[in-house]
Amino acid sequence: MRAVVMHEPGDVRVEDRPDPRIEEPTDAIIAVTAACVCGSDLWPYRGAESVHDQVMGHEYVGVVEEVGPEVSTIKGGDFVVGSFWASDGTCEICRSGYEAYCVHRVPMGAIGTQAQRARIPLADGTLVATPAMPDEDLLPSLLTASDVLGTGWFAAVAAEAGPGKTVAVVGDGAVGLMGILAARRLGADRVIACSRHEDRQALAREFGATDIVTERGDDAVVRIKELTDGLGAHSTIEAVGTQESMMQAIGATRPGGHVGFVGVSHDVAIPGGPLFMAGVHLHGGPAPVRRFLPELIDLIWNREIDPGRVFDLQLPLEDAAEGYRAMDERRAIKALLWP
Amino acid sequence: MRAVVMHEPGDVRVEDRPDPRIEEPTDAIIAVTAACVCGSDLWPYRGAESVHDQVMGHEYVGVVEEVGPEVSTIKGGDFVVGSFWASDGTCEICRSGYEAYCVHRVPMGAIGTQAQRARIPLADGTLVATPAMPDEDLLPSLLTASDVLGTGWFAAVAAEAGPGKTVAVVGDGAVGLMGILAARRLGADRVIACSRHEDRQALAREFGATDIVTERGDDAVVRIKELTDGLGAHSTIEAVGTQESMMQAIGATRPGGHVGFVGVSHDVAIPGGPLFMAGVHLHGGPAPVRRFLPELIDLIWNREIDPGRVFDLQLPLEDAAEGYRAMDERRAIKALLWP
Repeated sequence: MRAVVMHEPGDVRVEDRPDPRIEEPTDAIIAVTAACVCGSDLWPYRGAESVHDQVMGHEYVGVVEEVGPEVSTIKGGDFVVGSFWASDGTCEICRSGYEAYCVHRVPMGAIGTQAQRARIPLADGTLVATPAMPDEDLLPSLLTASDVLGTGWFAAVAAEAGPGKTVAVVGDGAVGLMGILAARRLGADRVIACSRHEDRQALAREFGATDIVTERGDDAVVRIKELTDGLGAHSTIEAVGTQESMMQAIGATRPGGHVGFVGVSHDVAIPGGPLFMAGVHLHGGPAPVRRFLPELIDLIWNREIDPGRVFDLQLPLEDAAEGYRAMDERRAIKALLWP
Repeated sequence: MRAVVMHEPGDVRVEDRPDPRIEEPTDAIIAVTAACVCGSDLWPYRGAESVHDQVMGHEYVGVVEEVGPEVSTIKGGDFVVGSFWASDGTCEICRSGYEAYCVHRVPMGAIGTQAQRARIPLADGTLVATPAMPDEDLLPSLLTASDVLGTGWFAAVAAEAGPGKTVAVVGDGAVGLMGILAARRLGADRVIACSRHEDRQALAREFGATDIVTERGDDAVVRIKELTDGLGAHSTIEAVGTQESMMQAIGATRPGGHVGFVGVSHDVAIPGGPLFMAGVHLHGGPAPVRRFLPELIDLIWNREIDPGRVFDLQLPLEDAAEGYRAMDERRAIKALLWP
């Protein structure tokens, strides 16, 4: 089969790799219908994380080709959406809604879903089948549920976005944009998007942003406080992962408010003093996307949300390198790959 | 009147100071019945915070002597308990239960309650009157509600201690011990106290600890995980304020669990990577004690809890220096001062 491999930072190629096979009785093999490039794939691409001959990709939708003898809820021919963490769905951590921390979790990024086929461990726990084969136009939105929408949704839930709340969103990448959609869908009265790019501002408004802040860092904190009677947002979504974005999120949130952070942390150190005096709630990390999949699939299936709009570039899998380049150069928000 | 003044680190004296007077129409003047030394007073005492000719003390119970013309809910002769932050009780932040961040807040530590009298700003918002004059034996417990019990209680609430939960408590000082009492009172099944001092272990057990861990730091994390099926505590109270204690608290908590931190942060920097991967909720800071005062006074009044046991040293105000010394040398957990 054909699969994306990152040989070194900046060096992405599509190559022949062995077809996956059932390794554990709880595995499934899927034919990948659509995959995509994640903002987090750019960290190794840019050399901020080490990488060497690594298969890539952890977001996926596809059709089940084969299941192991212990798989009972998923069968051949099912169209499935899965999380970027494989999880058993039965351990105490999974049952508490934190499937991304399942005691038996497997990172799909280590398996690679930017490929024609993929092995999905713990298929019963990991995969959710759609009610039927989806219409073609639903595929991008269903794909978002696998990570970027699920992650934005988790951030909004972690930030306790809801009715009566003003939500600030730090980061105008794909996850931030999904956070805007999630916050509005969860009932937030007002969503303040931080963005200085006109195309992303437009998409932010389409997803439900009511205010745009173009400042960054401390200046953005001042601006967000001006917009919220000097108090700060009730809820803030952090979707970048840098020191500046994390401190901006904490600073923009009122005492007793909630920060949901999902930007993968790089060289962040939160000073204890300012955190202590901020009085905010802080929750985040790798999103337990699996918790939200049934609800998100339902919203997409019924065409109540259209998160697939976040893909502003669609390419054949063979052109994956261009997808990485376009995202790296910020020519594209998010690139979908058709195997 | 007589009042405690810290001239320099380690130099605590009791001196004559002018009697307080009504400065704002929302003020009250109280005769302090009992005050005490806080663990946080030891930071400047030890030179970890700068201090120069500073009046001391922020915990207090007393009898109202005089009120300003705009005070309506408190009257002369009332026995009152107040928070260590004065708060108006009417702003949006107060109404959300975060009175320690009131937009008009005044730190009682800047006024000093280790004294015979004290001015209480924003008396209507800050003070809660007891149903009648309390019996003498209730005074220590009522005094704890002003900060140390209220802070431990907030930590337990922030950590979401409750039925079905295992709660770990990092720190065996007065706040940690109050956190144990609070966690049990809030219904926690199991409370793991971290302590290596026999006298504090005994008090921890008296307040409801079910397990004692004598290890510290990473070793304590390993031990707490052993006690919790390898998963970590559901809830962890951090009541120290050092890098080691904060990382111990985060490390000892399971994914999706809650850390309530109330130790005043000193030179703490939480690394973003480990925090991201921990998947915990983090909430803390100066406790909004005022939120809990009616409930805590009620529990004490009805003799359902006896938090005053945390005072293992009681001295006349004139001997305040000995109270500081005893706590600094860990000869006392917490010193009560009778003006």
